[in-house]
Amino acid sequence: MEGIFITFEGGEGAGKTTVLQTVKNRLEKEGKKVFTTREPGGSVIAEKIREVILDPSHTEMDPRTEALLYAAARRQHLVEKVIPYLEQGYIILCDRFIDSSLVYQGDARGIGIEEVLAINLFATEGLLPQLTLYFDIDPEEGLKRIQANSDREVNRLDQEKLDFHVNVRKAYQSLAKKEANRIKTVDASPTIEDVVENVWAQLKETIEK
Amino acid sequence: MEGIFITFEGGEGAGKTTVLQTVKNRLEKEGKKVFTTREPGGSVIAEKIREVILDPSHTEMDPRTEALLYAAARRQHLVEKVIPYLEQGYIILCDRFIDSSLVYQGDARGIGIEEVLAINLFATEGLLPQLTLYFDIDPEEGLKRIQANSDREVNRLDQEKLDFHVNVRKAYQSLAKKEANRIKTVDASPTIEDVVENVWAQLKETIEK
Repeated sequence: MEGIFITFEGGEGAGKTTVLQTVKNRLEKEGKKVFTTREPGGSVIAEKIREVILDPSHTEMDPRTEALLYAAARRQHLVEKVIPYLEQGYIILCDRFIDSSLVYQGDARGIGIEEVLAINLFATEGLLPQLTLYFDIDPEEGLKRIQANSDREVNRLDQEKLDFHVNVRKAYQSLAKKEANRIKTVDASPTIEDVVENVWAQLKETIEK
Repeated sequence: MEGIFITFEGGEGAGKTTVLQTVKNRLEKEGKKVFTTREPGGSVIAEKIREVILDPSHTEMDPRTEALLYAAARRQHLVEKVIPYLEQGYIILCDRFIDSSLVYQGDARGIGIEEVLAINLFATEGLLPQLTLYFDIDPEEGLKRIQANSDREVNRLDQEKLDFHVNVRKAYQSLAKKEANRIKTVDASPTIEDVVENVWAQLKETIEK
């Protein structure tokens, strides 16, 4: 396939969505064809699947059911959007992908990363991004950033929530170590401008390879 | 777990649903606790998933998406119905289960039996039925039986449909050979009374083991 598939990963408040939009604009200014997306990404079937996952009345949802549904939605989004754009030579910037499932379902929900990877590789027929940018930030700092954009006070941060995000960070870090060729860690603690420059350098390296 | 998990498999018109009901009644007359089910089996979430699979407007549905959705619905039905009844010591008679996915998605849709098995074992955490009864019948005979119950004439049987069912039968037969310990083949061509006696003998053997 002609295009390049790049995913953005990380915990809450790391700034990945903002950075994604900024580098998209820069790439387009350079005349590149860029497609930005996130699951379920406008696939009707993938959106229906997501509705089943997110329906608040579905309190009986088993973690493995959830993992299979995410893999199903991923498959459909891949077939309807990602692969056609790759075939047309686009650079695809995708906000969250397989690694989110590995971290959130595989690790945080306790199913196991290898098992969740296996059903996701079934879903993608082995297709993985050429580059994954993992935005690494201290969860306390990340949550502060989110709260700065809302009415909630910082001191109302509850500890359970923080522990969850600390575990998510550990899982991302260990994944980045294991998949060092594909996953590049971006220090997300500096200013957004600095993060953009870092991401830009990594993108250029992959694109010009 | 205390109970016994038995599945009924086979192509169309093999009589498995009728036989299932008959042996259920017999088992209950013997004082056994019997639970009969079929996916999605009254699980609200599994039914929602099935709606997504069967929605006729979803013409873009990819075969792997479909296989993942069936596995997700299976997982939820298993967790909400099959496992609780097994824990309460029931004999569970389930109309179609994993083998239907292996044959219809794995073989007929061309994904591959091993790959579809892997995502299904993820869904069941390795749980397989103690006994699977495969109802084997010549597809032409099976389709004739179905048509005898409807207005369609036998000679309107189209060849493409028949070929499909011939392939389904081959896939079931090869699966039964490979999984000979678990899958027992029932010749479904005699009268329903004879088939019931055959099935009854196999059931008793498993139950009294």
